Amino acid sequence: MDISAKFSDKVKHLEASAIRETFKLLADPSIISFAGGAPDPDLFPTEELAEIAKDILQNEGKTALQYGVTEGYVPLRNWVKERLKSQGIGGENDETIIVSGGQQGIDLAAKSLLNAGDGVICEQPSFIGGLNAYRSNNAELYGVPVLSDGIDTDRLEEICKEHSNIKVLYTIATFQNPSGITMSLEKRKKVLELASKYDFIIFEDNPYGDLRFAGEDVPTLKSMDKDGRVVYLGSFSKILSPGLRLGYTCADKALMERMIICKQVADVHTNVLSQMSAYNFVTKYSLDEHIEKLRQCYGRKCRLMIDCIEEYFPKCVTHTNPEGGLFLFCTMPEGYDTKEIMKKAIERKVAFVPGSNTMIDDKAVSNSFRLNYSASNEENIKVGIKALGEVLHEIVD
Amino acid sequence: MDISAKFSDKVKHLEASAIRETFKLLADPSIISFAGGAPDPDLFPTEELAEIAKDILQNEGKTALQYGVTEGYVPLRNWVKERLKSQGIGGENDETIIVSGGQQGIDLAAKSLLNAGDGVICEQPSFIGGLNAYRSNNAELYGVPVLSDGIDTDRLEEICKEHSNIKVLYTIATFQNPSGITMSLEKRKKVLELASKYDFIIFEDNPYGDLRFAGEDVPTLKSMDKDGRVVYLGSFSKILSPGLRLGYTCADKALMERMIICKQVADVHTNVLSQMSAYNFVTKYSLDEHIEKLRQCYGRKCRLMIDCIEEYFPKCVTHTNPEGGLFLFCTMPEGYDTKEIMKKAIERKVAFVPGSNTMIDDKAVSNSFRLNYSASNEENIKVGIKALGEVLHEIVD
Repeated sequence: MDISAKFSDKVKHLEASAIRETFKLLADPSIISFAGGAPDPDLFPTEELAEIAKDILQNEGKTALQYGVTEGYVPLRNWVKERLKSQGIGGENDETIIVSGGQQGIDLAAKSLLNAGDGVICEQPSFIGGLNAYRSNNAELYGVPVLSDGIDTDRLEEICKEHSNIKVLYTIATFQNPSGITMSLEKRKKVLELASKYDFIIFEDNPYGDLRFAGEDVPTLKSMDKDGRVVYLGSFSKILSPGLRLGYTCADKALMERMIICKQVADVHTNVLSQMSAYNFVTKYSLDEHIEKLRQCYGRKCRLMIDCIEEYFPKCVTHTNPEGGLFLFCTMPEGYDTKEIMKKAIERKVAFVPGSNTMIDDKAVSNSFRLNYSASNEENIKVGIKALGEVLHEIVD
Repeated sequence: MDISAKFSDKVKHLEASAIRETFKLLADPSIISFAGGAPDPDLFPTEELAEIAKDILQNEGKTALQYGVTEGYVPLRNWVKERLKSQGIGGENDETIIVSGGQQGIDLAAKSLLNAGDGVICEQPSFIGGLNAYRSNNAELYGVPVLSDGIDTDRLEEICKEHSNIKVLYTIATFQNPSGITMSLEKRKKVLELASKYDFIIFEDNPYGDLRFAGEDVPTLKSMDKDGRVVYLGSFSKILSPGLRLGYTCADKALMERMIICKQVADVHTNVLSQMSAYNFVTKYSLDEHIEKLRQCYGRKCRLMIDCIEEYFPKCVTHTNPEGGLFLFCTMPEGYDTKEIMKKAIERKVAFVPGSNTMIDDKAVSNSFRLNYSASNEENIKVGIKALGEVLHEIVD
């Protein structure tokens, strides 16, 4: 039988994450990849987690291996609630649950809110995992450019005026993926004002917020949310380990009730051993000290990458200056197609993410590309950026 | 703001799993609960997994804690493929992936195939996690009774004739949840024939199939599937650990491609440490020997529960005679409402799942209830069934 005739409308036009597909091409270990979004594996607390996992399985193995609660392992959930509270997140009408990675929070919120044809405004460029979550609910996506201080709020308002179907704004306001840009406080206030005026919900995806290595903290949208419009999406992936698939979501209680049912349907509950391991790590050790190490490392690597870019890239290629997170974004003069350039780069054993993979219309041509500085060591940053600079010079000179 | 006005049509009418909600009421440790569906925690290989997890984190920690591949950890995936092959499952046009528990397989397949209004035929009674997966895609559910040798195939065909929207049949053909009934070989052949005749897809959910303690194996539907109509859903939850959230799905390649994109959206990939731990367990130890222990234990407990039922329950209460799995199903004379009886049972410190929670229309009155024999120890089975017998006698005598 030809099963493809039976695919749902939601999924039949979906494209796999080109970034994750690229990973497979990058199995060649001689390629220096700036394409991923992975944390530095040298900073994983492997020894600590080895002891923790062994202790848990020996002493609380029957809990760790048994079915758990959909909302999350209670001690970890309470710890997350307290931490969020200290950041001004989570009011009386909010609820917080543990999810299986930040992506699951996006997916549950999208499923709970989006009908076919509902409008979702996304930053452009943005994170494909988010975009596909909305597409797979048959939502209509509208892109708004990210300027140097965050989303273009004038364009955001125009789109709200032009379209009556806007239900959600998706934003990675801090150290945005892929641009590395942080939305200014002023713009955050404006975004909240527009949400209220045009009655939309904000998905604030904040997996990188803890990883600031320069500049001053800016309050999260959720901490300024007065009427329960912000769904806050947090993650342990960048501050502890992505392989453990742990995140958390804080949102309005009534919405959370729907999301919890969707989580029962999605995976019943999150891996219990992971949750207990994370709880033991954050209570036996200092998560903040661990994060401080990550900040210093990523700050150093980011500065090194920018130094190398300025030394080796053609002057016509601009770059963002992130104050945290994992990514910076480069832009070539108009007319270049970085998807084509990627092929040449791969030949020279260096990889990045073409900007087209971060656009709502991923068939569009983009003259930008994303570079990740967290996953590579310093030697590879030097060698890889130099090689990429040679490729770019050949093209633009 | 009142966020509930914005809920999607898919989720606004969903009810939380009453079974999982019941778990919360059962936090009282003095209650003997036959309501869950948990494996016996005394049989978890905690010591083995403690050593395995520690070894992995110490020696391959950078892999275990880093992002993984959406389709699954390659060695585990290959091991599952080989095991399925030895069971006649997985042809040239099929693909197998690792999922985050069997439930995720159901959810991904449902999302990939179901439009609003598509018809899903479900066994009645059935597993609410499955039913909610279809409801949350706005599918139309049709129930077909489970007879002593499996689904009523005459009624199944009638429904196919009556409705032109049938896309999927959902069946737990072996040791069905909640009935404990196994579909006969003859009926399996008939079901496949009807699938071909009426062009529907079969979701074969088989989390209990390995747990046979009496009778003879019956071939899976998937092993007899000639034209790629069967989506096979397997799980490590009942044979290793539910807390680790590991399952696998084998289906037509083109469908699997859609499901993989949905998995990227759902949770990016399954917990890597869990996958590596399971792989190490099945290669360092014998999974079949471990399963043999489970079979003997559950067979013993099932026989004990049936002996107690026959001693303590009123004679008018009938029960199924499962040859494997975790559940048996009791039926009272017409007119009784086991949801009401549950309240009396809880007062007497014993709990079960009312049949209404396993019906498509969970508002309907049911005179049946599900008993789980795997999670309780033998003493509690005796004490609990005796107490429940007293409650039932008070009602029917």
